[in-house]
Amino acid sequence: MPPIVSFVGKPDHGKTTLLEKLIPELNRRSYRIGTIKHHVHEFAMDKPGKDTWRHKQAGAHSVVLSSPTGLGLIRDVSGDTPVEELVGRYFSDVDLVIAEGYKRLALPKIEVYRSKLADKPLQNRDETWIGMVTDLKQEGDLPHFGLDNIAEISDFLITTLIKPEHEQKQHATLIVNGAVIPLNSFVQRFIAQAVTGMITSLKGCQDPQEISLAIRRSKK
Amino acid sequence: MPPIVSFVGKPDHGKTTLLEKLIPELNRRSYRIGTIKHHVHEFAMDKPGKDTWRHKQAGAHSVVLSSPTGLGLIRDVSGDTPVEELVGRYFSDVDLVIAEGYKRLALPKIEVYRSKLADKPLQNRDETWIGMVTDLKQEGDLPHFGLDNIAEISDFLITTLIKPEHEQKQHATLIVNGAVIPLNSFVQRFIAQAVTGMITSLKGCQDPQEISLAIRRSKK
Repeated sequence: MPPIVSFVGKPDHGKTTLLEKLIPELNRRSYRIGTIKHHVHEFAMDKPGKDTWRHKQAGAHSVVLSSPTGLGLIRDVSGDTPVEELVGRYFSDVDLVIAEGYKRLALPKIEVYRSKLADKPLQNRDETWIGMVTDLKQEGDLPHFGLDNIAEISDFLITTLIKPEHEQKQHATLIVNGAVIPLNSFVQRFIAQAVTGMITSLKGCQDPQEISLAIRRSKK
Repeated sequence: MPPIVSFVGKPDHGKTTLLEKLIPELNRRSYRIGTIKHHVHEFAMDKPGKDTWRHKQAGAHSVVLSSPTGLGLIRDVSGDTPVEELVGRYFSDVDLVIAEGYKRLALPKIEVYRSKLADKPLQNRDETWIGMVTDLKQEGDLPHFGLDNIAEISDFLITTLIKPEHEQKQHATLIVNGAVIPLNSFVQRFIAQAVTGMITSLKGCQDPQEISLAIRRSKK
């Protein structure tokens, strides 16, 4: 599973604007980035009138638009999807997942704070805060980055999150009945080796770099 | 893997309009429907200006919008994604996947044809055609349905595609290095039982109805 970092902060302090500079810099260094936007209001993503929009309006549970360059999926869910499940399901082929929001979850967090827009940064800071991006000089002992120090923020993300993950050789992500099952590295290795062994005699499975297996028992 | 049917036909013969009536009818009978729109032109799904759109424009490989009622994913792909891969990855929890297009693939097909709009139906009809939805009276020996016979078309899809699939008790879908590996029912059962056995001693895995497992070897 790729590492996750969440950019938090009060509204309008520039989280999305920062990501618009940070993502191209990480791409330039050959890292693939996934992003998650957490949205608590009514869901809308597609363009009204398009065929996919008409399918969804008609009551389709899941709608996919597939083209040679891009893929889109819009689907119903019953309740907020845990971030770990999103990462396990949709981000297996990126190097880093950057989330916006999720202030209350135990994810590594970097706060974006502009002193002109609010007297103070967020007040619920805890041990999941790993850095600040701000126009203020150092305050407290968290690593600080200026609002335009894109190269330094990239270095920090690569050193603290991307590189340690890449050093682990095999990764197994297990989702059962919709919930991510935490696996220590021994169990990950055990499952990865057992499943790899089980399938390598099948045609087309001689050198499995990426295995995705879905098992379902019919209810009806 | 849920069964797939593709609605084909010349442009403007009313494929999407038919789906707009068929999907609610299948929902009314408690079936969850997934749809796939195959698009060969430039990909566009999100609304310009939204945060997720800005992430993607900035170069994110995969972008997710997550809310308590809906989920959206927009991601890059390198070349057309095989339909079986789309179904394995994104439609594990629906009862039937309805595609629009994919005339050339070996999927069960139903053609939508209006005699006022074209002299003849599609000319490349082969053994994958399982029905016609048309204003014409019977011609040839395929099952025929009128353009408004939504209940009959639903009956047909349920009898020929949904019910036979539900009778199979366990399903295993395997994707290796991005390609779906065809599995006969013996191998499906073997893999499903071995993996289920391997994980049931883990906390949270006592009654696995749906197992999703992703294994990745790091390249860097």
